[in-house]
Amino acid sequence: MGWEDVVKIDAMKKQKITPPKGAETMKCTVCRGPAVIRMPRHNAHFCEEHFLSHVRKQLKKTISHYRMFSPSERILLGVSGGKDSMAAWDLLLEAGYRPDALFLNTGFGDFSRASEEAVRSYAADRKVPLRIVSIQELFGVSFEDLVELSKSPACSICGMVKRYLLNRSALEGGYSALATGHNLDDESAFLLGNLLHGQVNYLKRQQPVLEEAQGLSRKVKPLVKLSDRDMKLYVQLRDIPNHPGLCPHSQGAVSHIHKEILQTIDDTFPGTKGSFYTQYVEKIRPLIEAGLSQQGSPGSPGPGHCSRCSYPTMRDGLCQYCSLEDAVRKARS
Amino acid sequence: MGWEDVVKIDAMKKQKITPPKGAETMKCTVCRGPAVIRMPRHNAHFCEEHFLSHVRKQLKKTISHYRMFSPSERILLGVSGGKDSMAAWDLLLEAGYRPDALFLNTGFGDFSRASEEAVRSYAADRKVPLRIVSIQELFGVSFEDLVELSKSPACSICGMVKRYLLNRSALEGGYSALATGHNLDDESAFLLGNLLHGQVNYLKRQQPVLEEAQGLSRKVKPLVKLSDRDMKLYVQLRDIPNHPGLCPHSQGAVSHIHKEILQTIDDTFPGTKGSFYTQYVEKIRPLIEAGLSQQGSPGSPGPGHCSRCSYPTMRDGLCQYCSLEDAVRKARS
Repeated sequence: MGWEDVVKIDAMKKQKITPPKGAETMKCTVCRGPAVIRMPRHNAHFCEEHFLSHVRKQLKKTISHYRMFSPSERILLGVSGGKDSMAAWDLLLEAGYRPDALFLNTGFGDFSRASEEAVRSYAADRKVPLRIVSIQELFGVSFEDLVELSKSPACSICGMVKRYLLNRSALEGGYSALATGHNLDDESAFLLGNLLHGQVNYLKRQQPVLEEAQGLSRKVKPLVKLSDRDMKLYVQLRDIPNHPGLCPHSQGAVSHIHKEILQTIDDTFPGTKGSFYTQYVEKIRPLIEAGLSQQGSPGSPGPGHCSRCSYPTMRDGLCQYCSLEDAVRKARS
Repeated sequence: MGWEDVVKIDAMKKQKITPPKGAETMKCTVCRGPAVIRMPRHNAHFCEEHFLSHVRKQLKKTISHYRMFSPSERILLGVSGGKDSMAAWDLLLEAGYRPDALFLNTGFGDFSRASEEAVRSYAADRKVPLRIVSIQELFGVSFEDLVELSKSPACSICGMVKRYLLNRSALEGGYSALATGHNLDDESAFLLGNLLHGQVNYLKRQQPVLEEAQGLSRKVKPLVKLSDRDMKLYVQLRDIPNHPGLCPHSQGAVSHIHKEILQTIDDTFPGTKGSFYTQYVEKIRPLIEAGLSQQGSPGSPGPGHCSRCSYPTMRDGLCQYCSLEDAVRKARS
């Protein structure tokens, strides 16, 4: 798959890794200084400074192109301690936005401890607001117990609880939007999976901005034009604390395979991953939505409302979150 | 990528290739006899006899599900001498259809000679109708000269000339439909490419049956549920002459890369390639078409008609085929 695009020559030398052929002489396309990354999709090499300015420009362009939010709006940013949401946090602050960060601690042992440490350390260092919610404290049982009680896969419970809490926090906190650190690799892999399996309901909703609907906060993804590699190098160069490990539950997740596949295509034809996502969002998705509305079918019946918390749910009676609360209560009584 | 699905244990032994572990004891899911192929997407192993009957059933199901044609209709089948169109020819004859075959000789040296030899030999053996047209004789110059005169890539000229001649032959011969040997791997790779690049006009038309339109014959693809591997084994077991080589001009074609990618996904999650294509054709494509018609935009302006041959063209004046004829005439005068 060719050599790693992210080339830190100095770091490689320190670790006695032979830099790839030609890397020594790779010059920044902007200033002709020593380059640290080559970006075939932009047909460019960048030095540290111009890589950072490239990433900042991409973020600003994305926010303005998709009309995500203005600096005066209050944004809630979900942070996980991973490279993407940490980079999003830093990039938004650098660009003059003032996001409030929310970290949900799932209680996955060392993984969650190191993630919380990363977000705490960044917030303390930059003196910016951070709210931490422990899912274990909220439910009064461990995440493993939640998974057992729900009889669902760990990733599905974790996703459901996080989506619920982030959405509810954004709405109850009166925020204009909920931002997340999903990057181009996340979104394009998700898109590929949904296309491979004809998931029309997800395909309809797959876009960088989801407008507010009853009981659903406005959702924005400011990193959709930036890749995994971009974000990896960004946190490295900016020395931003982050937890580089994968969630212990995510091993072998299908999305990793879809990411690898798209990376393989992109290594062969640079820029394909980005154009795949952009073309879908701007050309194909609107047709699918229009097609659904013309058929008089919204793809699936719209959600109803939970009889307890009144947040949207596809179920009759209690939503999944409230059902989980009930299951915990029952198990403990 | 696991072991090759197509396992010919006897052939392997003859060639002193060690059969994959477990292959010796692989039993046919239907009759428990020795299996020659495992088909993870159908969660089955088949012996020769039940593999052939499986392929025949798939063909019949496809023809009836997509209402392609009935045995009483006159079908023109484009044959290239490759495994797919040769298998389609044999399968259609076996199923009681009576296709007329048309072979277009592009004049690619040994490749075309061996391909013509395969179709001639099959037609003679089965005593079935075959028409052969030499593109070199038709234009009076070699294919290489056509490419040079047209200033277009070889694959684009070859595709244009073949599509034109097949379509015209089907219409002028009064056939109900033009059938081609495109299989699941061809169609899903084409689909992936069109999705990766947001090719809305191709996406709209990508389906197993294209209805007749003014100047355009009805087009059907009876092999869309059968894979490359199925067809490879089919011609092998049925001992059907075919040219196994790739066209000398197709080396490194992007479609081969897309095929490999989809095969990788399918090896990991058997059945994905098929469900990708079927879900697209049955769920997503109709939405794209409805979306385009709702927008009041057919995706692109419909074709006009060539001022000489009156077949459809997106150009003003002469179509690409007639322009090529003119260019040849001019060069020779």
